[in-house]
Amino acid sequence: MRLIVINGPNLNLLGVREKSIYGDRTFEDFFMELKEEYDNVELFYFQSNHEGSIIDKIHEIGFDYDGIILNAGAYTHTSVAIADALAAVTTPAVEVHISNIHKRESFRHHSYLTPNCIGMITGLGLQGYKLAIEYFINK
Amino acid sequence: MRLIVINGPNLNLLGVREKSIYGDRTFEDFFMELKEEYDNVELFYFQSNHEGSIIDKIHEIGFDYDGIILNAGAYTHTSVAIADALAAVTTPAVEVHISNIHKRESFRHHSYLTPNCIGMITGLGLQGYKLAIEYFINK
Amino acid sequence: MRLIVINGPNLNLLGVREKSIYGDRTFEDFFMELKEEYDNVELFYFQSNHEGSIIDKIHEIGFDYDGIILNAGAYTHTSVAIADALAAVTTPAVEVHISNIHKRESFRHHSYLTPNCIGMITGLGLQGYKLAIEYFINK
Amino acid sequence: MRLIVINGPNLNLLGVREKSIYGDRTFEDFFMELKEEYDNVELFYFQSNHEGSIIDKIHEIGFDYDGIILNAGAYTHTSVAIADALAAVTTPAVEVHISNIHKRESFRHHSYLTPNCIGMITGLGLQGYKLAIEYFINK
Amino acid sequence: MRLIVINGPNLNLLGVREKSIYGDRTFEDFFMELKEEYDNVELFYFQSNHEGSIIDKIHEIGFDYDGIILNAGAYTHTSVAIADALAAVTTPAVEVHISNIHKRESFRHHSYLTPNCIGMITGLGLQGYKLAIEYFINK
Amino acid sequence: MRLIVINGPNLNLLGVREKSIYGDRTFEDFFMELKEEYDNVELFYFQSNHEGSIIDKIHEIGFDYDGIILNAGAYTHTSVAIADALAAVTTPAVEVHISNIHKRESFRHHSYLTPNCIGMITGLGLQGYKLAIEYFINK
Amino acid sequence: MRLIVINGPNLNLLGVREKSIYGDRTFEDFFMELKEEYDNVELFYFQSNHEGSIIDKIHEIGFDYDGIILNAGAYTHTSVAIADALAAVTTPAVEVHISNIHKRESFRHHSYLTPNCIGMITGLGLQGYKLAIEYFINK
Amino acid sequence: MRLIVINGPNLNLLGVREKSIYGDRTFEDFFMELKEEYDNVELFYFQSNHEGSIIDKIHEIGFDYDGIILNAGAYTHTSVAIADALAAVTTPAVEVHISNIHKRESFRHHSYLTPNCIGMITGLGLQGYKLAIEYFINK
Amino acid sequence: MRLIVINGPNLNLLGVREKSIYGDRTFEDFFMELKEEYDNVELFYFQSNHEGSIIDKIHEIGFDYDGIILNAGAYTHTSVAIADALAAVTTPAVEVHISNIHKRESFRHHSYLTPNCIGMITGLGLQGYKLAIEYFINK
Amino acid sequence: MRLIVINGPNLNLLGVREKSIYGDRTFEDFFMELKEEYDNVELFYFQSNHEGSIIDKIHEIGFDYDGIILNAGAYTHTSVAIADALAAVTTPAVEVHISNIHKRESFRHHSYLTPNCIGMITGLGLQGYKLAIEYFINK
Amino acid sequence: MRLIVINGPNLNLLGVREKSIYGDRTFEDFFMELKEEYDNVELFYFQSNHEGSIIDKIHEIGFDYDGIILNAGAYTHTSVAIADALAAVTTPAVEVHISNIHKRESFRHHSYLTPNCIGMITGLGLQGYKLAIEYFINK
Amino acid sequence: MRLIVINGPNLNLLGVREKSIYGDRTFEDFFMELKEEYDNVELFYFQSNHEGSIIDKIHEIGFDYDGIILNAGAYTHTSVAIADALAAVTTPAVEVHISNIHKRESFRHHSYLTPNCIGMITGLGLQGYKLAIEYFINK
Repeated sequence: MRLIVINGPNLNLLGVREKSIYGDRTFEDFFMELKEEYDNVELFYFQSNHEGSIIDKIHEIGFDYDGIILNAGAYTHTSVAIADALAAVTTPAVEVHISNIHKRESFRHHSYLTPNCIGMITGLGLQGYKLAIEYFINK
Repeated sequence: MRLIVINGPNLNLLGVREKSIYGDRTFEDFFMELKEEYDNVELFYFQSNHEGSIIDKIHEIGFDYDGIILNAGAYTHTSVAIADALAAVTTPAVEVHISNIHKRESFRHHSYLTPNCIGMITGLGLQGYKLAIEYFINK
Repeated sequence: MRLIVINGPNLNLLGVREKSIYGDRTFEDFFMELKEEYDNVELFYFQSNHEGSIIDKIHEIGFDYDGIILNAGAYTHTSVAIADALAAVTTPAVEVHISNIHKRESFRHHSYLTPNCIGMITGLGLQGYKLAIEYFINK
Repeated sequence: MRLIVINGPNLNLLGVREKSIYGDRTFEDFFMELKEEYDNVELFYFQSNHEGSIIDKIHEIGFDYDGIILNAGAYTHTSVAIADALAAVTTPAVEVHISNIHKRESFRHHSYLTPNCIGMITGLGLQGYKLAIEYFINK
Repeated sequence: MRLIVINGPNLNLLGVREKSIYGDRTFEDFFMELKEEYDNVELFYFQSNHEGSIIDKIHEIGFDYDGIILNAGAYTHTSVAIADALAAVTTPAVEVHISNIHKRESFRHHSYLTPNCIGMITGLGLQGYKLAIEYFINK
Repeated sequence: MRLIVINGPNLNLLGVREKSIYGDRTFEDFFMELKEEYDNVELFYFQSNHEGSIIDKIHEIGFDYDGIILNAGAYTHTSVAIADALAAVTTPAVEVHISNIHKRESFRHHSYLTPNCIGMITGLGLQGYKLAIEYFINK
Repeated sequence: MRLIVINGPNLNLLGVREKSIYGDRTFEDFFMELKEEYDNVELFYFQSNHEGSIIDKIHEIGFDYDGIILNAGAYTHTSVAIADALAAVTTPAVEVHISNIHKRESFRHHSYLTPNCIGMITGLGLQGYKLAIEYFINK
Repeated sequence: MRLIVINGPNLNLLGVREKSIYGDRTFEDFFMELKEEYDNVELFYFQSNHEGSIIDKIHEIGFDYDGIILNAGAYTHTSVAIADALAAVTTPAVEVHISNIHKRESFRHHSYLTPNCIGMITGLGLQGYKLAIEYFINK
Repeated sequence: MRLIVINGPNLNLLGVREKSIYGDRTFEDFFMELKEEYDNVELFYFQSNHEGSIIDKIHEIGFDYDGIILNAGAYTHTSVAIADALAAVTTPAVEVHISNIHKRESFRHHSYLTPNCIGMITGLGLQGYKLAIEYFINK
Repeated sequence: MRLIVINGPNLNLLGVREKSIYGDRTFEDFFMELKEEYDNVELFYFQSNHEGSIIDKIHEIGFDYDGIILNAGAYTHTSVAIADALAAVTTPAVEVHISNIHKRESFRHHSYLTPNCIGMITGLGLQGYKLAIEYFINK
Repeated sequence: MRLIVINGPNLNLLGVREKSIYGDRTFEDFFMELKEEYDNVELFYFQSNHEGSIIDKIHEIGFDYDGIILNAGAYTHTSVAIADALAAVTTPAVEVHISNIHKRESFRHHSYLTPNCIGMITGLGLQGYKLAIEYFINK
Repeated sequence: MRLIVINGPNLNLLGVREKSIYGDRTFEDFFMELKEEYDNVELFYFQSNHEGSIIDKIHEIGFDYDGIILNAGAYTHTSVAIADALAAVTTPAVEVHISNIHKRESFRHHSYLTPNCIGMITGLGLQGYKLAIEYFINK
């Protein structure tokens, strides 16, 4: 089973940026833990601040992998193009947000991506990524 | 650890109603499975079609239990009163929806409850309840 | 043939309340007439001011009866839960309003229920109930 | 008692057009049936694709006839002029729609005509015309 | 100097229709008075309930006459086509409304025609037509 | 003189819930004080989390009592049915809110109830109930 | 017969300001002409850039004069207070705008004042004032 | 204890203007009564039709007085500047409206001032001023 | 192969009207050219300022012809009835606009017709008609 | 070179009012500094809480001075009349706001004045006034 | 004559992705055909999933080439930056969409690009590209 | 002191593109001048048409530099991701626009970036960059 975590813009600053919202741990550290915990699945990680690069990556893996765990950050709210990429490939995706996007500014309440994903997990912190992995393992 | 699953209107018809959206299994059957799988936590279940009864139940358990797993069904989109009940108690809640509410009618895209919950899981089927339980166990 | 008339909130005050809009006759009197006139169908009557009780009743009769004649009163405009109940059962419904809801406040122009009913009759007074019964008899 | 059925644009194609929505019977056939069934009332029929012709007809009969049964088709949603014509005459009207307009595109949910009619029947198929005739007979 | 009064739908019922809003005098009587009072201008009159006929008339006289006094009735609020006709011809128009359209339903507050007219007179009763004629005489 | 205080959902938690907004005193304690202070009026108290029960109570007392002091809590913003109940009875009502609803979320700025009440008092804390009682005594 | 012309903000600059829209003649010059032309009516003139002063003036003359010709300039679009002043007095008003406000920015299309005036004349230049005087003389 | 009643535009016409809404008593008469009834507080009165003068007065007394009872009339709905003045001073304010603003035009349902006041009383007639005074005395 | 060009209101003035937008050539001249250029297809032409006549024509040819090239002019933006006519017939249509409707007023950006056409060509001048013909020839 | 700083309502309280937003320095002190620093330009200062007085001042200096530095405070968001005054004069204006208006309530995000100014500086504190002066000196 | 086809995000998956909407042919195959068919023009092709790369390309060729045939895919609906790029260069563009964007989700009905293009062709399948080329050849 | 000017899409065409709006000078020339004039600060320059590259650059310098002068061009109005990048770093930013964005299309009136910047300067031409530099030097 091959799964990929795709993180969007600014998530490379996790652990540095806005600690009151996102906590003080880098995603790389957390990803190492994930790999150890789920050693029976092949876990990949990709992060980019470029909308186009996220689309390229979805195209690249979207016909072979078994699942995408996608936190597109701010592109969640503005990118029809990433939504189209998800619709264009066959690998299913689960959307994850670390913070509860419904507690933040109203423009963060809308996601272009959710209708093209199986579902969405929001507000459960870094655990959200784990739960998404478990979803793919158990479904 | 004491957790309660609260289901709102029409979820008593699960397994009967709109099978193409919700599947053909009753929630009671599923809940039995949950209790077996998570035998180290005290799991309770409450369902009502009455907005007021859901509020009464939240008040009753909301200062003692360790977590609420809330699928308020249609009241998700119309009940400020349930949202206020969640804000009024100390037990934290995770919102769950079986179907992906963002794939359905636009009036189902808005939830009054999410801002008063820790987070929300939508579209992951009955597994959403399991993931919410795991969230409470691991947080 | 079994049909049920379900009336929502405040319709128990018919004949008392706002006579300029609804006339001065109680619904119970009118229902007796209906039963006499349509003695070849089994006619039932249920009224409640509780959204949840209306849902319970729809569930109870919604897989056996041949038709629901539903005047949900104010819940017409606010209840996604009753709309979901109608979608969840197999008995078809016709929506009835005594007054012409399009002549009243704009929030009464929208009905959550109509898309889940066969159709709607509005503004034809108590005759609306009769026409709905005839519809079920003749269809 | 003189009643007139006025049908608006495209209803001349009934039985030809969009059969999944409107059925496969021409309105002329149906009207013959109506005349036979209600032989104690004088029943007239008028159809036009021209907004102005519908207004002309309403003016022509609108001070003498006892009732208008109006299905203005698409003009329902766009014609303030027909609504004004209804307000200008003394013959009362009942609005009829064959399909349930609340199950279709959102621009079909609004009717300029309903506030100037006694009431409206929608979604009950060709039976809606019959029920409107019965309304006029019994009121 | 040649001027034409063009009246739109339902204005043929003036003096019959909704007397509380429009008064009880026919427009034809009033027009006779106008012709007498302004015997130094050639005054013409055209009324139609057909949007297309109003457009045809505007095309017909719109390159020769000196002024159009236009009360398009309900088409004021819905007809882009008449507005385009006014823009397409060279004869200038003044828009007139008998009643004060800003005291009536909100959909009557918007006019597609005003931006393509020199100006508009509303609410001054039948006098509005006289003032429009005087405007053309004195400008 | 008979007056009733009707409190809606979650107000049973007063003194427990969100103390920074509502203070730390139970409503029952406060009501005892009210009864002592206004011993020349018959004061009653009713609280429910059920929309339907509030409607039932309004019907029960709404033709005999001299005044309703209504704090419908969250139902203020969502219940057309309670608004209709107020319109259906003859006892006048004054709406009270403990907190200033215009300082809170925008969905709390609109009340379905105010147009069917004599007036409204908001933001003056528990004193709002006293002022409403004085209003009924002095009018 | 006593009539007053009330001009609002920036109309003191007429003849100086934005000549392409308003022409190059001062209002004082024009008013002198008006007085000469209509020497059988008592004509007064008041201009202010202060909303409050316009209200004071309306109060002062609003129970004695026979007509107000009001061009409130920009306050047309923002002043509920002037609208209330017009409703509070007994002297009727006709609203005048020199330019066609429907050809300008969309925020100029709405007037708070029109519903409290007999009617409105827009876009007919300085002649609009004359026509308003004639209206008062002839009504 | 020093309190000031500040009345906005057109309230100087109380007892003259729109008696069906506001009653037929001048505010000055009423204020004399208030002074007699509450002779243990220093009561002041200020009325102006000028937004700027109301701001000047708020600045003048807003650091010394113990309470402002503010009925800003139409400026309630349009004046951000008065709202800012209330935020800028230290004297607290209670907003009062004589009529029930929620029964009137929709543009009167919104108040810029309420969020910067302690609270608001609407619809209780002149008694609203008394209740506001009592609020300041008892808080 | 039989194709028809249907032009809506005001397009009969092409070459006369608003030359800066539409050019100075009559459509009849242009149509002669089209017929010569595409002499292997039967080309017909119909123009009307009447919404109803356009519908009648669509009905008349809509079950026999091979394609409709429709420039409905202003009716594009207001006519649900023409849209319904297109849906009711079997001949496919391509929508054409001479000017780029997205560079003009915002009410011209919406077309009721496009969803019921195969596609739309806008802004390419009279060439748009040619391209539509070529589309039908080549598809 | 003659420049004038015009400050609108409540800015006379600078240094007193809402210090967390505006700082604790009076504008008069700051203006003295400005005059010293820019002793090669004639600098004037005007403040008023009256919309009308600001318009009067703009008219008075608006044909002679070389620049207006305008902080209209709350009138920024509500005054079409001041915007018109700026359009009516020939002296150019630069709009200044001390706080960042885009970090505050949404009704402060819109300015009627900016389109009639050369440009705007917001959020740079009292320095904004200096930068505006430098702009006029260097342009 | 030099023309370039620029395709935006996900169009590289043509022939793979959502075949029910876009058909099952790769764009590269189709482009080869185009080059053969139009061998008298120099045809270039560029595809990117990166908004910035599309802008770079428009800058690169936008002062030399004779035409751009642009299908910006999802960026059509979200990219002001590409629209600005089109406005910044001198080469004219024609917008093409393979599917009829007005038959799809409402957020696809708006294009930022069309006002900066000569025109747009939508819904005519891959033929749309051919027609755009013919437009450039014949204009 | 280290400051960086970051320019977004299409600003590389300054001096070439839309000269009537932006002037005919390249930004590189202007930047050379800036460096000479402000030789006591370290000034850097970065331009990209790629949203992702702007984010990368903000991350790279956003914890070390003393100020960002950001003209994000069209991304100002569409990029939540750049706004998040500004919030994520510690270097403060001042937003600059050469033209007055409030004089242009309405979609340019909203900026996602301003709430995450200290402030904004718009409409003051290239001088805006200078004033921003001076702001950083003097604060």
